[in-house]
Amino acid sequence: MQRSLENVRVLDFTRVLAGPYCTMLLADMGAEVIKIERPGAGDDTRHFGPFQNGESGYFVYLNRGKKSMALDLKNPHAITAIKELVKESDVVVENFRPGVMKKLGLDYESLKELNPSIIYTSISGFGQYGPYSQRPAYDLVAQAMGGMTSITGHPDDPPTRSGASLGDMSAALYAVYGIMVALFHRERTGEGQLIDVAMTDSIFALLENNVMRYTVDRIVPERIGSRHPISSPFDIFQAQDGHVVIAVANESLFEKLAEVMNQPELIKDKRFCLDSLRTKNETELKAIIETWLSGYTVAEAVEMISKGGIPCSPILTIRDVCEDEHTKAREMLIQVDHPMAGKMKIPGNPVKLSQTPAIIKEASPILGEHTGQVLKDVLKWDWKRLQDLEEQEV
Amino acid sequence: MQRSLENVRVLDFTRVLAGPYCTMLLADMGAEVIKIERPGAGDDTRHFGPFQNGESGYFVYLNRGKKSMALDLKNPHAITAIKELVKESDVVVENFRPGVMKKLGLDYESLKELNPSIIYTSISGFGQYGPYSQRPAYDLVAQAMGGMTSITGHPDDPPTRSGASLGDMSAALYAVYGIMVALFHRERTGEGQLIDVAMTDSIFALLENNVMRYTVDRIVPERIGSRHPISSPFDIFQAQDGHVVIAVANESLFEKLAEVMNQPELIKDKRFCLDSLRTKNETELKAIIETWLSGYTVAEAVEMISKGGIPCSPILTIRDVCEDEHTKAREMLIQVDHPMAGKMKIPGNPVKLSQTPAIIKEASPILGEHTGQVLKDVLKWDWKRLQDLEEQEV
Repeated sequence: MQRSLENVRVLDFTRVLAGPYCTMLLADMGAEVIKIERPGAGDDTRHFGPFQNGESGYFVYLNRGKKSMALDLKNPHAITAIKELVKESDVVVENFRPGVMKKLGLDYESLKELNPSIIYTSISGFGQYGPYSQRPAYDLVAQAMGGMTSITGHPDDPPTRSGASLGDMSAALYAVYGIMVALFHRERTGEGQLIDVAMTDSIFALLENNVMRYTVDRIVPERIGSRHPISSPFDIFQAQDGHVVIAVANESLFEKLAEVMNQPELIKDKRFCLDSLRTKNETELKAIIETWLSGYTVAEAVEMISKGGIPCSPILTIRDVCEDEHTKAREMLIQVDHPMAGKMKIPGNPVKLSQTPAIIKEASPILGEHTGQVLKDVLKWDWKRLQDLEEQEV
Repeated sequence: MQRSLENVRVLDFTRVLAGPYCTMLLADMGAEVIKIERPGAGDDTRHFGPFQNGESGYFVYLNRGKKSMALDLKNPHAITAIKELVKESDVVVENFRPGVMKKLGLDYESLKELNPSIIYTSISGFGQYGPYSQRPAYDLVAQAMGGMTSITGHPDDPPTRSGASLGDMSAALYAVYGIMVALFHRERTGEGQLIDVAMTDSIFALLENNVMRYTVDRIVPERIGSRHPISSPFDIFQAQDGHVVIAVANESLFEKLAEVMNQPELIKDKRFCLDSLRTKNETELKAIIETWLSGYTVAEAVEMISKGGIPCSPILTIRDVCEDEHTKAREMLIQVDHPMAGKMKIPGNPVKLSQTPAIIKEASPILGEHTGQVLKDVLKWDWKRLQDLEEQEV
């Protein structure tokens, strides 16, 4: 099977989540990702749970299909080796705090002297420039400073974090788009470049129409729970044993719903006879729907409502979605076999390419597993030189 | 200025959000995106608020830098023109319900006969195959069926939607990564392909470690508000006039916080002297911190806590983030000038490329603005033929 990023070599200095997820997306498509890790401890996520036979599932998932070199960035010999590797690489990715790579002599200005066509990618909390660029950022900070938490949650609740690390994940996605754009450009022109992606910018970029409502109408969007801002009933509702989504955005769907509920009087009710009125009186309408739903389980309600031609769905827990037939059919959970951890199920790649599909077979590397091999294969360094380096590493 | 996707032509059949955001990311980088719209009404988002001089800000933002052709897909002449355009295009993107493009004779199998190197991209709620592929999906359904709403929100709340349309936005991001990977592959081999991206898969792919906690440890992650699952105090806290993020993930930061709070006794308190104990007793600790914070405004608290060396931030509203100096410095709000709407501020592109930056200058097209021009420039169709087509359109 051909792989689209065959012969693309990525030198990967990233740690934890945003950077490793970005380079994972490159590895899935066949890039040779060489992960540079601290000797001894390695990437922090090697020590984050959940563990299986002492190996981190979090690390296995994010670092599948990569190579690991254990190199101490404080060791000048290691820096020499890295600079030689840069000459043989296509892409560099790092997610240190701005300034760290410069102190190591590994900033873009230094590395492009060695390889002018290198594509150098920095992922950080607030970016490489701008007034906050030196601030530390965790995902929670990026979600809060990017505007997302202010609009997530129920009206009476405090601002709410999204359940997953959107700051990291979105920065990774924007970065991989940037890297692919730069690789395409380089293929046509030979030119390399610097890419700067910030977690807060990435969160801001996800806000979509919330930004336009402010810049055009000066409305400051607030937390409205799960409901639709201008249609009702379009929300999450409580049934006997859980919650269901009902998505009614026009008059004909509302008529169908009233029929399913066996309450045709709702259609002519002055409070509910138009979408705009339903939205205005949405609290009352929600109470009526939930009273009706209290007589049914989620499964019963979803079947009845769907049968009536109204968009409706259950709310899947993480277990539900992992065990779902559709998730399996879409190959969204893939089994890998790790030499120490054993078999593990990890999330698949959501991009289904017909000719050059993502291939996820190899688990993550053991720390330093490929230090010698990469030096030998890529740099043709002889054993003596390799040993000198390794001694320094210890 | 060179643009990375110069000479890449995209035939864009997408409507509303996921598809248009995907092709917007291509247009930002210089691709010629030709948007095919229904004569008369055009893309639904032309009729979504906010409006400025009757023009939708939502549409202007998502369709900047694109061309618009008004073509009726039920008109065989229009289909003929589209098929001719496919021969001259590099990428097709569509987000109809699976099966619609086939009915129109515009599915991948048909179009690759005309142009074997075409990259054909389908974005849908549940994907082109799998048991749920025919179900309709709104963003709320994708967030619910992808597992995200089950882990977003506070423990006593129902499942909660993220404040922005993550199902659409993430599918757009995964799709543009797929398109760029396919374009890169085609550049090297000449081979085209089919790309299938589902909103629910994309949401699932964002869940990160929540999936591993289930597949490895059989833990079903639940809603825990904004707090960190294994560190405390790492959460959003109420101050006098709003909320602040405080991010303490180790003993030394907690000591610093206790000093800033002038409550050094907390350090030795048996309930709080270790991160694991603080997490166990996090409700009590949160109450103590919020009692302290009740004496300070957000601005005062953030200054004091940051000065103490502890990661801390305010929660920005959409207005705050739009007006923030950092947002401006990062060019995350760009002004465009629309011939009818006038000047509008729209979100920028978060990927900062040094050599081929995103260029966002042109506003969105008027419906059908480029129908004649594209036919003439790309297909060299003469006026007569153009007129025949236009008559059919009416």
